[in-house]
Amino acid sequence: MGETSESPIVLVHRPPTLAYMDDHLSRNFRLLNAHLSPDPLPLFLSRHAASVTAFVNIGRLKIDAELLSHLPSLQLLVCTSVGTDHVDLAECKRRGIAVTNAGEAFSDDVADCAVGLLISVLRRIPAGDRYVRSGNWSKPGQFQLGIKVSGRRVGIIGLGSIGSRVAKRLEPFGCIISYNSRTQKQSIPYRYYSDVLSLAADNDVLVLCCSLTDQTMHVVNREVMESLGKEGVIINVGRGGLIDEEEMVKCLVEGVIGGAGLDVFEKEPQVPEELFVMDNVVLSPHAAVATPGALESVAEVAIANLKAFFKNQPLVSPVRLG
Amino acid sequence: MGETSESPIVLVHRPPTLAYMDDHLSRNFRLLNAHLSPDPLPLFLSRHAASVTAFVNIGRLKIDAELLSHLPSLQLLVCTSVGTDHVDLAECKRRGIAVTNAGEAFSDDVADCAVGLLISVLRRIPAGDRYVRSGNWSKPGQFQLGIKVSGRRVGIIGLGSIGSRVAKRLEPFGCIISYNSRTQKQSIPYRYYSDVLSLAADNDVLVLCCSLTDQTMHVVNREVMESLGKEGVIINVGRGGLIDEEEMVKCLVEGVIGGAGLDVFEKEPQVPEELFVMDNVVLSPHAAVATPGALESVAEVAIANLKAFFKNQPLVSPVRLG
Repeated sequence: MGETSESPIVLVHRPPTLAYMDDHLSRNFRLLNAHLSPDPLPLFLSRHAASVTAFVNIGRLKIDAELLSHLPSLQLLVCTSVGTDHVDLAECKRRGIAVTNAGEAFSDDVADCAVGLLISVLRRIPAGDRYVRSGNWSKPGQFQLGIKVSGRRVGIIGLGSIGSRVAKRLEPFGCIISYNSRTQKQSIPYRYYSDVLSLAADNDVLVLCCSLTDQTMHVVNREVMESLGKEGVIINVGRGGLIDEEEMVKCLVEGVIGGAGLDVFEKEPQVPEELFVMDNVVLSPHAAVATPGALESVAEVAIANLKAFFKNQPLVSPVRLG
Repeated sequence: MGETSESPIVLVHRPPTLAYMDDHLSRNFRLLNAHLSPDPLPLFLSRHAASVTAFVNIGRLKIDAELLSHLPSLQLLVCTSVGTDHVDLAECKRRGIAVTNAGEAFSDDVADCAVGLLISVLRRIPAGDRYVRSGNWSKPGQFQLGIKVSGRRVGIIGLGSIGSRVAKRLEPFGCIISYNSRTQKQSIPYRYYSDVLSLAADNDVLVLCCSLTDQTMHVVNREVMESLGKEGVIINVGRGGLIDEEEMVKCLVEGVIGGAGLDVFEKEPQVPEELFVMDNVVLSPHAAVATPGALESVAEVAIANLKAFFKNQPLVSPVRLG
């Protein structure tokens, strides 16, 4: 089925580089492409989108009350990320706007990347790669030893679709898994910690897989890092704001913690330059979701949500609005 | 128990940097440290080691018939590596010299590293780390997409203690595992290929975990790489000689294969410089075994073999001598 004059209208906004959903969308809907207009976004919305009911937000454009005020008919906001910290969910709830996210489309890829970052930091894979490329490898046994992965105690913050996949992947490494989340999960064999401080104290590695909310903002603060300790490693595939980044940099400089593997940062794409010279950190450009397969999956989830909406059927991946 | 005048004498040779076993050895044996003598090794052995029955070879000193000819009383050669391609095993067999290796002491660490290299190549983790450190990350979505790990078809060459651990670790990633080895393993759920060419044709990734012998030398040649194909990736945690390195470099330059994660090289520590500029390869300085835990384990295995030998008990990790 191609797009026809009968197809519903969907408002789209995306960064120039994220074109992966264009074909999927245009095959199914008539599109109002806000990102193609030279007009400022509020002006464009006021002029052209007053009657729009569905909005696909590809990327992380800030969706606040002010922007939503230009979309008086909006009933559905389709986000293409897992996290929706760029959206004013309270305002959506007040307005009765349903919000959907990427669901589990990215979960495998983000979990794969989290495990990759964990091994990379502990076994110093990028540092070894730099060492060989520098031409300095001239004698056996000179490269600094890594840390054993097998048997490591790993504490996961947020045991949702990503965190549980990280746990499952680390089990055959002989890692000892425990977790923190809002509530204890039923029929999960891993030890539960109701507070992050105790989780940090009892583990060698913390993996951040939770969403960023008012409650989880800076959930890893200096106190947690001191509790994790000087051999401790933090892996973050959630959002930059989960860690007090300024304090983390200090903790890395002072040796309060042992290392970090970071796919996300507080002020992306800005990254604290102090990290650039550290061999015990691995930096990744918010690429945990970046595989062709994942983009295909998220496009499918977005389309499925839109189709369900226009058919008055239950949404595929609704976000809980507080 | 400390070393006494009653303790057996053990000949030791090691590179300057590999001192991790000194304490273990000196607590249990009287040591004849060949590496501390200014004399050429054959001269030192002829003068001082004619009556020595046990020799610990730490590192990868070439042990050939000529060197062994200076050790007429030798009955046991203790190696600290898993692979024993630096030893003339046929000569050891002819002379009735038993050889032991590291057994399974390194297996977890090498398997951890193999999986780390696999994720690092597919998800471009060191390339992303370089990208962020270069300061070039200024816009979202610009970094080249990686390849999905989950669901990838992985062919393992050599399903011994390392290869089987790699398989076990990759299972919860949803990878589809198959393998090649000298003989089909009983009660193993993975598909068996009797030839490497078919294994390469049917897989996305090849992981080399076998020992280097006359039969496995250049087991990955140009034909195998052509069969693996342009999206195919090779991970090598075995020995450099398993791959025809010169042809591999050409295949990477020409795009015949898609990438490689290499912990070992044919002429270590020399690495072909063409690889230094490639973003689709990850280079590691023969560090797959390099964790403090692994070194501790291998020291224990070596001591256990020596003790068993001097008590006329079965060796802990004997190498099959052809």
